[in-house]
Amino acid sequence: MTEKKHIALLGSTGSIGTQTLDVVRQHPERFDVFMISANNSARLLVEQALAFQVPHVVICNPEKYREVREALPASIQVHAGIEEACALVQAPEVDVVVAAMVGFSGLRPTLSAIEAGKTIALANKETLVAAGSLVMERARVCKAPILPVDSEHSAIFQCLSGAQGNPVHLIHLTASGGPFRTWPREQIAQARKEQALKHPNWDMGAKITIDSATMMNKGFEMVEAKWLFDVEPSRIHVVVHPESVIHSMVEFADGAVIAQLGCPDMRLPIALAMAYPERLPLEGKRLDFSQLQGLTFFEPDRGKFPCLQLASDAMERGGNIPCAMNAANEAAVAAYLKDRIGFYDIPEIISRVMDGVKFADEPSLDDIFATHEEAFRMAGSIL
Amino acid sequence: MTEKKHIALLGSTGSIGTQTLDVVRQHPERFDVFMISANNSARLLVEQALAFQVPHVVICNPEKYREVREALPASIQVHAGIEEACALVQAPEVDVVVAAMVGFSGLRPTLSAIEAGKTIALANKETLVAAGSLVMERARVCKAPILPVDSEHSAIFQCLSGAQGNPVHLIHLTASGGPFRTWPREQIAQARKEQALKHPNWDMGAKITIDSATMMNKGFEMVEAKWLFDVEPSRIHVVVHPESVIHSMVEFADGAVIAQLGCPDMRLPIALAMAYPERLPLEGKRLDFSQLQGLTFFEPDRGKFPCLQLASDAMERGGNIPCAMNAANEAAVAAYLKDRIGFYDIPEIISRVMDGVKFADEPSLDDIFATHEEAFRMAGSIL
Repeated sequence: MTEKKHIALLGSTGSIGTQTLDVVRQHPERFDVFMISANNSARLLVEQALAFQVPHVVICNPEKYREVREALPASIQVHAGIEEACALVQAPEVDVVVAAMVGFSGLRPTLSAIEAGKTIALANKETLVAAGSLVMERARVCKAPILPVDSEHSAIFQCLSGAQGNPVHLIHLTASGGPFRTWPREQIAQARKEQALKHPNWDMGAKITIDSATMMNKGFEMVEAKWLFDVEPSRIHVVVHPESVIHSMVEFADGAVIAQLGCPDMRLPIALAMAYPERLPLEGKRLDFSQLQGLTFFEPDRGKFPCLQLASDAMERGGNIPCAMNAANEAAVAAYLKDRIGFYDIPEIISRVMDGVKFADEPSLDDIFATHEEAFRMAGSIL
Repeated sequence: MTEKKHIALLGSTGSIGTQTLDVVRQHPERFDVFMISANNSARLLVEQALAFQVPHVVICNPEKYREVREALPASIQVHAGIEEACALVQAPEVDVVVAAMVGFSGLRPTLSAIEAGKTIALANKETLVAAGSLVMERARVCKAPILPVDSEHSAIFQCLSGAQGNPVHLIHLTASGGPFRTWPREQIAQARKEQALKHPNWDMGAKITIDSATMMNKGFEMVEAKWLFDVEPSRIHVVVHPESVIHSMVEFADGAVIAQLGCPDMRLPIALAMAYPERLPLEGKRLDFSQLQGLTFFEPDRGKFPCLQLASDAMERGGNIPCAMNAANEAAVAAYLKDRIGFYDIPEIISRVMDGVKFADEPSLDDIFATHEEAFRMAGSIL
């Protein structure tokens, strides 16, 4: 019998978090949940703790501690604050840390898990976007394998597992194109959040759905791909594929392209990262080729989606600029979700912040946190 | 510097043979041609021998020996008869044997190369269709790696190289559907060889192009896939994909599908089999996703293409039945190419031969040759 893997789940109440627990539910013989954490969603956190009999529960917002503590039996330890999450992921019991927090706040606990040499199932994009150089270096030194949970990076990872030492010629990073793919620019400019939140293929959280509408999400993924797979930015090609059946592709020197296809279901990359290298059978729909209506591909329109170009520029400039881009985006998207700015104000703010922050060529972790603060504040002052 | 690989090329004047030599031309630093053989095409064989300075040339038809001998300098050894080819592939100088002969005659020299433990780049379908059980057993015992050159099997092989021990859930073997995919059955029944020879995507020899029109080619590939990848027939799913961009796919337990895509150019699988595991840069077009018009998929119509069902039946019955099917097809296609029979006479003859031959459950090599003779003769008597 295979040993159970003990999971620490950062961000258990979000979209990836709940789907991670669904994978555990499907394979109780393979996984045990050692720890779950959430920022604010106390009620769902309590439900999850009870359902999965999780011994350690972290509520990051200390104001919610009492609510969680009172709802759970004494057999479950309840902790408050992100520092507790950072400590718990290092526990010797933990095998795999699923990093599913949203935004920059995921960086610190993920780094903590890396320092302890844990296997990281990485769903938090910002960790690599903001601090890719540092994170990959620490992962190398601490021998912490980083397994991508993003469907695109998981696809690339799967395509590369048969590479046998052959270098990547091109990564074809597929993009659905988001809800505004076919809209003219003038109409996109007027788009309200209710429209931006209607993603055609994937059911995700609000922040990432807006990032998908601006295609900044794809920009982040370019940066992530650069770090995860150690490829030059010029070898990362974004291709719009509205059907989201092909989740990404790798092209080799001989012209062969290896692709990963599937239904849009995040439980597949989550389960693969948790059980790697084993593929577990999963509930849910499978691809039915006779039902596919035709797979199409387009070049992205960088005029309509300037965030793509911003991400290319950020990779080109390097240093702390991707971190600044991420912070400015975080601030701008929050403002857009509050109806405080228009759709194209998002790239405008990001661009101004990228030009405005103090450049650091080889940023330390302190520099990264300082850049995040500076960029976030700068974005707020432009708003 | 990487050592050169020394190639023996069986069937050098056919479609795969000439493309194999084109790969050698593109990479003279990597390959040396030790031997080439042809059945009858003396003039092209001579040209190739001179162009690639091949030390050993085999003309299988002894009547052409004199023509070849007189056209070549004394520095090049000329041999006559298939037995000479069988001996030369075993020479200690040979690293890789490209088995590109057409039809059942490829079996003996391929087996000879396997007995000598050579790496086999296998383009000859009939070797596995007629004698899969024997061939795979000898390859295992003699430690002769068999690398597929068929675009579909090469694709599956590439998809499986990242499997990391995970079993195959399904193989999706793609088929262009051939020139008659959209024709109604009554029209196909009247099809002349000139129409059957117009393949939409691939430029191949006459025999294999007719096999593609009847879809017997795909039936053969099902049998090959069963042997090459050790999968149950029920796990081999044929899917019609007219654009021939995806060359085949593998589906795993978790629903993930890994696919190989590329332009329809046989030099890719040939080069991969010759240089394996290395992927060499190749001249020629690469996939341009923005130019793809939409990839479509259909279930094959077994009513219009009864050869598919015959192949499934042959796999089901096992033993020497696939060998009989292959021999009957070889006879029937030859008759069709001579305008002696109609299109649907091909499956009719095959079916009657499959029912008529003496069944052998675990055929020896002698049984295989006997079955081939018997089935070929039986097909001739029906014609």
